[in-house]
Amino acid sequence: MSTTISLETMGESLSRLRERRPLVHNITNFVVMNFTANALLALGASPAMVHAPEEVQAFVAISGALVVNIGTLDSAWVMSMSLAARQAVATGIPWTLDPVGAGATAFRTRATLDLLGLAPNVLRANASEILAIAGTSGHMPKGVDATISSTHALEAARHLARANRTIVAVTGAVDYVIGADGGVALEGGSPMSQLVTGTGCAATACVGAFLAVEKDALLAAASALAVFKAAAAMAEPSGAAGPGSFQSALLDALHRVSPADLAEHVALRRL
Amino acid sequence: MSTTISLETMGESLSRLRERRPLVHNITNFVVMNFTANALLALGASPAMVHAPEEVQAFVAISGALVVNIGTLDSAWVMSMSLAARQAVATGIPWTLDPVGAGATAFRTRATLDLLGLAPNVLRANASEILAIAGTSGHMPKGVDATISSTHALEAARHLARANRTIVAVTGAVDYVIGADGGVALEGGSPMSQLVTGTGCAATACVGAFLAVEKDALLAAASALAVFKAAAAMAEPSGAAGPGSFQSALLDALHRVSPADLAEHVALRRL
Amino acid sequence: MSTTISLETMGESLSRLRERRPLVHNITNFVVMNFTANALLALGASPAMVHAPEEVQAFVAISGALVVNIGTLDSAWVMSMSLAARQAVATGIPWTLDPVGAGATAFRTRATLDLLGLAPNVLRANASEILAIAGTSGHMPKGVDATISSTHALEAARHLARANRTIVAVTGAVDYVIGADGGVALEGGSPMSQLVTGTGCAATACVGAFLAVEKDALLAAASALAVFKAAAAMAEPSGAAGPGSFQSALLDALHRVSPADLAEHVALRRL
Repeated sequence: MSTTISLETMGESLSRLRERRPLVHNITNFVVMNFTANALLALGASPAMVHAPEEVQAFVAISGALVVNIGTLDSAWVMSMSLAARQAVATGIPWTLDPVGAGATAFRTRATLDLLGLAPNVLRANASEILAIAGTSGHMPKGVDATISSTHALEAARHLARANRTIVAVTGAVDYVIGADGGVALEGGSPMSQLVTGTGCAATACVGAFLAVEKDALLAAASALAVFKAAAAMAEPSGAAGPGSFQSALLDALHRVSPADLAEHVALRRL
Repeated sequence: MSTTISLETMGESLSRLRERRPLVHNITNFVVMNFTANALLALGASPAMVHAPEEVQAFVAISGALVVNIGTLDSAWVMSMSLAARQAVATGIPWTLDPVGAGATAFRTRATLDLLGLAPNVLRANASEILAIAGTSGHMPKGVDATISSTHALEAARHLARANRTIVAVTGAVDYVIGADGGVALEGGSPMSQLVTGTGCAATACVGAFLAVEKDALLAAASALAVFKAAAAMAEPSGAAGPGSFQSALLDALHRVSPADLAEHVALRRL
Repeated sequence: MSTTISLETMGESLSRLRERRPLVHNITNFVVMNFTANALLALGASPAMVHAPEEVQAFVAISGALVVNIGTLDSAWVMSMSLAARQAVATGIPWTLDPVGAGATAFRTRATLDLLGLAPNVLRANASEILAIAGTSGHMPKGVDATISSTHALEAARHLARANRTIVAVTGAVDYVIGADGGVALEGGSPMSQLVTGTGCAATACVGAFLAVEKDALLAAASALAVFKAAAAMAEPSGAAGPGSFQSALLDALHRVSPADLAEHVALRRL
């Protein structure tokens, strides 16, 4: 695994992201498009949502990273996702997959496995989805929420990382970012994140933004999740009023979170 | 009608909803997907937005309730709505219809009547839509807003409830929830709700959430609307700053509204 | 150009808009639908988002204005946009075009030029898009954000206004509203607007709302942009906390902005 991974190198990635302001091409779900675009803008990236088969390949070519999220998939959108992912791989643009609700239906699991076959640089999911993809789930997924702890998906994540030669990020109370030969655990954040739709999806988009400025995919994914956890912790006092206030405060925090905040709000553990 | 309907039994429904956290399958419009998902999460339910014809039937099967909202319909989406509604009826999953903008165009009215023929457990609409569906409107609907009082649609609602053997909920300054042999009126809430898009759609989604935990559809619909009115009343002080603040405060209030708040903020009258 | 354009006549347009509450038909992108609807409601208009080819023509007929925004276009949506725009022109309903990301891909530029050929009353865009449409860009557009100053697009805007006999509005730190024989510059607003997705799109929708109540298209467009700049300036103190707070505050400000606020927060210069 990366020998340079630390909260300090993550902070350097964050500074680099804000200097370069990478264009992040998202093919994502209808529910979270607005929040995702606002999260990327707040973080310091430049978001675009583009899905037409006539232009996804051309748009990948001008982007720093591609993010694919299947939340409100249908067959036409899956085709666009596939076109875009193939183009990304062919031209060396890093891409990230968020398999929302994998395991909930056969159609969704099939789409996930097909996209996973296109070699994403990072797979970001919750524990239910990781178990479903690894085929080791004894749990019936409940919609698109994680109802089991990320720790229970750690072995499945290791398996997927090796089998697919990708970085696997499982998020929850503890976030795990796993590569072929090691990984990290991140602690911090806020339980309020569970009460706002799209926080996981926005975190995936932030992984994309970091991949545009950091070639080490494990460091990029860990940086994005650490920044997201720090921002959630900083937003938490607003969560006392409820999830509506927390949502606004999370965007505010993504804008002001600094490299120094990572050390203050996130604990990093090597695995 | 239900002999047990009271603010107290509504409060019991709310507590049950929060214990069980039902999965609510939404096929709804693009404008309100994010706000609807956040409203359901704040309330205590688990939202999912799923529309692909390849998976809607399978997804209905794992859900506690289905909610269909035609706001940004097109023919492909109406086909998915129909597939999902038929599956819900066939398997005993309660479903709710929100006929946004019925009456504004012939296409929209036709889709509404077709879906209404699939026996929704609850029809939730504003006065203009109810009058259009009942065919008794002398008013040209103005877009998707209600421009006439819910009270003017009370007779049409009674007619629709009997003719379709369903519960009809007409919302406005006064909410009416009408069954074959009676109903209730609910007063309270805030006029600021009119200034935030999707409050009616989110209320419909909450009806779905209550139907997942309460078999008496009249009680379920009335509970959802009472909770929504109480939350709006609790959010109103933030509305002094304007509709942006009110929107956040409404989500906060949906999260903290308690059974006791119903008695404090809502007046119930049997019809 | 209009001889009556002034902050005072703009204020009169605003008052008229709030009295008449025009129905604004939007065919816009998924990212901004919710924010656009809320911005129109806050301003005092009645929004609707309707895109099905089966009903767009009928919906144009009952609307006060049409707004077309290509942000998340695909070929089916472009067909609906074209149907709606042709209907608007045929029946004298004013329509406005927002060519999001024109220049980023050939597909997007082609769709823009086709729609521009259907004689929109107003074209509202950022500097990158205007340069791309005018074919005078030496800049590679970076996604959907403006990365160059609106002032650099002023000559291209004048060319487009004459060639297409339309009003061209280029927004940025300075907004330019240009007609065949003159125009105005508007200064004010807040740099925080750049950090919230859809502020440009919502401003375009407000142009639509003003066109429904003001026949002079230059005055209508300038009124909308002046109101938007004033509201952004009024919301800016909340922007100190960050873009999430600013977004809510902007909706609050659109609701309370008054004719008198225009003079206080916006500087108008005739060109």
